[in-house]
This record gives sequence, C-alpha cells and structure tokens, in this order.
Amino acid sequence: MGGVEGTMKISARNVFKGKVKKITAGAVNSEVTIELPGGLEITSIITRPSVGRLGLKKGTTAYAVVKASSVLIAVD
Amino acid sequence: MGGVEGTMKISARNVFKGKVKKITAGAVNSEVTIELPGGLEITSIITRPSVGRLGLKKGTTAYAVVKASSVLIAVD
Amino acid sequence: MGGVEGTMKISARNVFKGKVKKITAGAVNSEVTIELPGGLEITSIITRPSVGRLGLKKGTTAYAVVKASSVLIAVD
Amino acid sequence: MGGVEGTMKISARNVFKGKVKKITAGAVNSEVTIELPGGLEITSIITRPSVGRLGLKKGTTAYAVVKASSVLIAVD
Amino acid sequence: MGGVEGTMKISARNVFKGKVKKITAGAVNSEVTIELPGGLEITSIITRPSVGRLGLKKGTTAYAVVKASSVLIAVD
Amino acid sequence: MGGVEGTMKISARNVFKGKVKKITAGAVNSEVTIELPGGLEITSIITRPSVGRLGLKKGTTAYAVVKASSVLIAVD
Repeated sequence: MGGVEGTMKISARNVFKGKVKKITAGAVNSEVTIELPGGLEITSIITRPSVGRLGLKKGTTAYAVVKASSVLIAVD
Repeated sequence: MGGVEGTMKISARNVFKGKVKKITAGAVNSEVTIELPGGLEITSIITRPSVGRLGLKKGTTAYAVVKASSVLIAVD
Repeated sequence: MGGVEGTMKISARNVFKGKVKKITAGAVNSEVTIELPGGLEITSIITRPSVGRLGLKKGTTAYAVVKASSVLIAVD
Repeated sequence: MGGVEGTMKISARNVFKGKVKKITAGAVNSEVTIELPGGLEITSIITRPSVGRLGLKKGTTAYAVVKASSVLIAVD
Repeated sequence: MGGVEGTMKISARNVFKGKVKKITAGAVNSEVTIELPGGLEITSIITRPSVGRLGLKKGTTAYAVVKASSVLIAVD
Repeated sequence: MGGVEGTMKISARNVFKGKVKKITAGAVNSEVTIELPGGLEITSIITRPSVGRLGLKKGTTAYAVVKASSVLIAVD
C-alpha cells in the first residue's frame, strides 16, 4: 500500500493520501490534481458528476487510487 | 507531471522517479515495487519479459508512469 | 452508482455489491468472481497479496468497482 | 461471462446486456449509462464518435464490456 | 477504426485484424501476440480461460481491440 | 515490442511509431490519431495539456504506447 492508508479496504495496491490542489471541469470529465507529501502531485481524470458526489474542492483531503496493472515502468 | 521528470516525453501526466525495491516474478506477469522519495511506494504489474528487457533489479533507478485516466479518487 | 452503494465514497461510477463466488490464485495475480443480484457475475483480476489483505474467500461480501473509462460498449 | 452473452466472442470476461438509459455528450467523450436486468446500471465513457458509429440512443440494446483486469474489489 | 474492421461493432476506436503468432500461458493470465499486416505485432494479456473460450491458437485470425483512453503517446 | 522501437525504454509491450494525423481538442481531453505504416491508424485520448507539452501537431512523429493488459482480443 503506497503512502498513508485510509480506513477503506480496496484491492488497488496504490493508495496515496493528499489534498486536492486543482480541479478543471469539462462537459463530461474533470481533471483533479492531488498534492502528496514530499512535493509530489498526482493528476486524475474522473467524470464530472463524481467531483460533485465526492464533494471535491481545493483543499479537500482525498486519496488517489491506482491499480497496479495500470502502472507502467520506464528507465532512462 | 508528478515528481522528478525524466528526459523522455510521454503523454502520461504522472511520472514518478524512484528505485526498484522488490520484484516478484510469475509465469506471465511480474510485480515490481518502486520506492519514491518521502517514503511512498508504488507497485506495478508488468509482463515478465519487460522486467528483463528493462534490466530491472533491486536498486535500479526507474520511473512509474500512470495515465491520468487510470487514477481513481476516494474520500473518507 | 450501479446497484447497491457502500459507505465508502470513490470516484468510480460503477460499484456493484455481491458475494465472492470463486477465487483462482496464480503466482502474481488472482482471479476473483463476484456473484451479483439477479444472477449476474463479474470477474476481476487483482494481485494475489490483495486477496489476502482484503480477507477474500468464498462467500465474502464484496464490491466490484469499475471506472467508467474502463467500460466499452458493443452492439450486435 | 457476466449476464446474457451475445453472439460476438471477445476476451473480456464481463459482458452485460442491457438498454441505453442516458447519453451525455462532450466535445471529445460521451457518457453512456446502460440499464441492466435487476435494476443495476453501468456507466461508460466512450469517445463521442463511437456513440454515432454504434447508433446509440435511449433504448438501444447494448452490451457493457469490462476486462477483468479493470475491475477493482473493495470490502467494508 | 484502425486497420480492417470486423462485423462486430464495439466502441473501441482501435481494432486491428491479424493472426495469433504466440501464446504463453500462466496460471491466471496468458500472453497472446498477434501479427498485424506490415510486420507489426501487438501483445495482449488476457485471462487463461479466455484463450480457451475464444479457441485461440497459433494461426487463428483474431482482432486486437484497444480503447482510445488506454493509448499513451510519446515523442523522442 | 510492436513495430519500430524508439530510444526510450518503457515496460509497455506495444510501441508503434507513426505521424500525428488529426487532433480534436476538448476542455479536458483531446483525441489524437496517429497514422502507422501499412495504412493502420491508432486513436488515443490524452489530456489536453499533454498535447501542448509534447508539442503534438499534424505531422509530428510520435509513438503510440499500449500496455499489454489494455489489449482485448476478439474473434468472429
């Protein structure tokens, strides 16, 4: 489990706790950036209705959740 | 772009630089965990041949790459 | 939100409550099938350690979670 | 194979037959909700041109297709 | 729609017709490589039961199907 | 590795070199179509800021990158 773990239990191996830094809304999707500890940031595309349902706004504490099979690895 | 950016340019909004901490090999897939700055970790499932092609082993500097549309968000 | 909604709040638009029907374990990944109301079933591939961490076994109540961007649509 | 199976053969383990309930169109993507038997619903994001190419509108019989590796599992 | 289009109609924007070149089976997943026209190849990970259900073996004509939101872009 | 391989090393098994043929921009996402050798095309949805960051425009040489676990297989 990456980073700080919440009380929910989800199969995704990567759960990162942070605060919403920025939200950009489109007609169907919205882009949400979460600031993580150590200066890292993670950006997500979720549907616009989900932003409302989760009550996301700048400063909201939130978790970025990433299934291990969605992570690629690169080397220089 | 999350964290430290490499010289490659990829559309994925999330690229995290770290070091390979652990590799578990299966017949088809392998699980690779990368340690990020600040004590975070990210776990990836990639095909076993890719582990060899990239020369990944414990300690290798590597990037975890995550497309924004693969990131979910959760709140307590 | 598809079907019965749990207490957790996640951006995924599709959350289906059911019971674990079958688990097949591999070295790296496991296949988990969940039986939904109305005779539907949904099959998931998650990492083997996640099966243990979530305490999944036959009969466990569980939610299948699917991000809307992962759903394709087909017509005859 | 989830639910009713169509005549097409696709590797995705989850194929759910239902009727289009709602379509929301954006510039690039559209959100399509399909009503399944038993009162379940599944929501998909597909590109806007695909909605036209498949002839989707309210009431169209359609299949929601989900690859097993795209399904997460959660427990309370 | 990439390449030759089959008779099925699926929302995925990328459907490539080719022939199965190689299958590697694991306990849960199998790796299937399809040879496309022009010397290209595309490799897929699907569940092992799907290989059987689709009757895939070396030489089988098959389509590789890729949702547009699963495609990343890179530049040198 | 599908098709022509670039100098970057990424775990994705499928990397196809081509030229950008068309870009459609939305508020959050953009659709980018890449023309491959042999008359094939591959369409991608990436975030709008990534189009700018990569400097993509009609005619740009670019790679389409697809993780093997994102590829479905279908048969007639």
